[in-house]
Amino acid sequence: MTEAKSGPLRVGVAGLGTVGGGVLKLLQEHRKDLALRLGREIIVTAVTARDAKKDRGVDLSQVTWLPDAVAVANATVVDVFVELIGGEEGPARIAVEAALKAGKPVVTANKALLAHHGAGLAVLAEKRGLALKFEAAVAGGIPVIKALRESLASNRIARVSGILNGTCNYILSLMQAEGRTFEDVLAEAQAKGYAEADPTFDIGGFDTAHKLAVLTSLAFGTRVSLKDVYIEGIEGIRAADIEAAEELGYRIKLLGVAQRTETGIEQRVHPTMVPVGSAIAAVNGVTNCVAIDADYAGSLTLVGPGAGARATASSVVADLIDIARGDTSPPFGVPAAKLAPYRQAALKAHAGGYYVRLSVYDKPGAFAAITTRMAEQTVSLESIVQRKTRNATGGPVPVIMITHETTEQAIRTALDKIEADGHVNEKPQMIRIERV
Amino acid sequence: MTEAKSGPLRVGVAGLGTVGGGVLKLLQEHRKDLALRLGREIIVTAVTARDAKKDRGVDLSQVTWLPDAVAVANATVVDVFVELIGGEEGPARIAVEAALKAGKPVVTANKALLAHHGAGLAVLAEKRGLALKFEAAVAGGIPVIKALRESLASNRIARVSGILNGTCNYILSLMQAEGRTFEDVLAEAQAKGYAEADPTFDIGGFDTAHKLAVLTSLAFGTRVSLKDVYIEGIEGIRAADIEAAEELGYRIKLLGVAQRTETGIEQRVHPTMVPVGSAIAAVNGVTNCVAIDADYAGSLTLVGPGAGARATASSVVADLIDIARGDTSPPFGVPAAKLAPYRQAALKAHAGGYYVRLSVYDKPGAFAAITTRMAEQTVSLESIVQRKTRNATGGPVPVIMITHETTEQAIRTALDKIEADGHVNEKPQMIRIERV
Repeated sequence: MTEAKSGPLRVGVAGLGTVGGGVLKLLQEHRKDLALRLGREIIVTAVTARDAKKDRGVDLSQVTWLPDAVAVANATVVDVFVELIGGEEGPARIAVEAALKAGKPVVTANKALLAHHGAGLAVLAEKRGLALKFEAAVAGGIPVIKALRESLASNRIARVSGILNGTCNYILSLMQAEGRTFEDVLAEAQAKGYAEADPTFDIGGFDTAHKLAVLTSLAFGTRVSLKDVYIEGIEGIRAADIEAAEELGYRIKLLGVAQRTETGIEQRVHPTMVPVGSAIAAVNGVTNCVAIDADYAGSLTLVGPGAGARATASSVVADLIDIARGDTSPPFGVPAAKLAPYRQAALKAHAGGYYVRLSVYDKPGAFAAITTRMAEQTVSLESIVQRKTRNATGGPVPVIMITHETTEQAIRTALDKIEADGHVNEKPQMIRIERV
Repeated sequence: MTEAKSGPLRVGVAGLGTVGGGVLKLLQEHRKDLALRLGREIIVTAVTARDAKKDRGVDLSQVTWLPDAVAVANATVVDVFVELIGGEEGPARIAVEAALKAGKPVVTANKALLAHHGAGLAVLAEKRGLALKFEAAVAGGIPVIKALRESLASNRIARVSGILNGTCNYILSLMQAEGRTFEDVLAEAQAKGYAEADPTFDIGGFDTAHKLAVLTSLAFGTRVSLKDVYIEGIEGIRAADIEAAEELGYRIKLLGVAQRTETGIEQRVHPTMVPVGSAIAAVNGVTNCVAIDADYAGSLTLVGPGAGARATASSVVADLIDIARGDTSPPFGVPAAKLAPYRQAALKAHAGGYYVRLSVYDKPGAFAAITTRMAEQTVSLESIVQRKTRNATGGPVPVIMITHETTEQAIRTALDKIEADGHVNEKPQMIRIERV
């Protein structure tokens, strides 16, 4: 510890986008306070970015510009490497590996890199006794990585879940608050810069899945396994679903859920109906939240900003502070070589209630045929709402059902048969209900 | 770090009440998992407690019983001392000082010790490069000490507030949910063991004040100053206030609030009306929550169990894990010698809305006299509700007022004059409103 605390901590930053700019700004603005707390300064000595001329609102006169990320990682003036480039391969991966091989601790905000190569990078870091830290990779300013790695390190975790993507939550919140369609709200989010021009990574649930895979490893001491995350996005949510949820006392949120089951660990990302009075239902807009069920600590919920330059910079600098203080503990809590293989639970064994919305041809016998298909799979119904016919020509009418607890297998089989029977004019909508 | 990580960490525990028993149970139950994470075992080697014969549901056959806490602190088989005795003076303080003087890091759950002697103990610890850790002293299983000390170390904090006492929140939640009186619910809480036989420390707001004083020091880098906390308890809250709050769209919570103002730092504990839709209003029963406003991280809210053997044990063991990993950073984040003197803000400068309930003699002119007194202090009223007369004899009737934002000085002066005018038959009720 004594050795680690002597002299300033010299930081090299690769990538000066929104987050990188925020990190430099924070380190300059709170330089004195940080030095007071740590007994040493944290100073940025080298950077690389695509555009050296762009005004980032920070003084870069004392900083060495280098041609690429690997040059920053290897620079003699750099003690710790901060990777803010993004992407699972390419310069981000190459430079992080270079830094670790050069004996330098790494801070990264790169969820894709961790979800794909986290275990391997942890091995590289631990072999050399180096920190590899990534608080900013999941849930922005919420200190959930530290909570799982450190505060809850003595607990057996049963479940970790949360709203991990601000774009999706913004869209769903606005659909709910203003009764607008998905397409309409998405267009607005894109115009405002809350959603990308190609929004697939966010709205398809992939961003949430990456973050969830990292949380799963930390919570359960298993190797990161992104490929085993079941993923459904929010693109299929209709205004009719939001409206029905409202009437039934629910809100629709895109949740990432990882939990222990008897058969293994279940990782899933999908739209979820949560009771309107629950804490998670009150998390609106770009705010994120993470709920953790731990055997000793109990149920913890952390709520805060999921993205943004300032919140993410706060998490990056928190990691730098830990490194400045000499922290070299394993990146995923458990030493990488001892992370258990990920054992996937069959999602079909998931048990819970379901919301189903069908668009049913209004013909004699249709309703009876549908409820019979449900009964065949022993799916029992808590409530059924058949809206009044929109036309008198036998055209489709919406039918909404809430089931009692049943299995994924049973509900899917019933809906497949209902669809095959030809009583509906579009694929049945099915949303899981969680009593969070 | 290397040296710190070799061999088991040998723990001495003074006090085997609820929390102490939980710590021993946790360390036994998760012994292997912890050793896997840390690369070293955490084992309890020595204990002391009033009753050595009591069955605590844990195996104590390998543990050395010692006559008192100081003996545990000084025992050669003890590397780290855990103080779970409680109390600001006496054996707790003496043993903690003895441990630090003997060169041993300390973990304590003792909020009173920290609120009274925190800064001095921190000096003792830092002089020797030792950890003094106290995650369990505030908000039970919620990792708020670590969040402030580490995750938010690079932030300037504007405000920290929360529900920090489970007994008060249990009583207020039950009064609200079941429309019962304070006395009735308190008696039930005492019967169930949620409240002490002498409940003053909890319901008088003193427990919350101790915890708030510790959070204030961590959040603002100032010396702990318990004596400067303004304290009001919940003993004056009537069913009529709960009912009126409900009608007006609020819940009443006992909050601890510390915030920066232009004149210094304000620390206050008092019943508070919070909007019914806010996250804090949804925190019921013995659950605690802490909300933090930070300049970079933004608004964070942490919710979880505020007490209980298991949750508190989780926090104690989290501290032991940090110590096992070699953490020796300053107890209050900023080195104790550099903590700023606490500069108190005048509470009279606090600005916000107020709820006022008066019991008014139903005589001509009373209402006009009251509203005139308000106007004289330029307190403007958002709403006034005069309930219908309960009798026809000119006896007192309840009048409820909600003010627009005003100052503590103005509202107190107005209420003092109203009381002096003789139009009310009891001291006016006044509850601050916070738009959390």
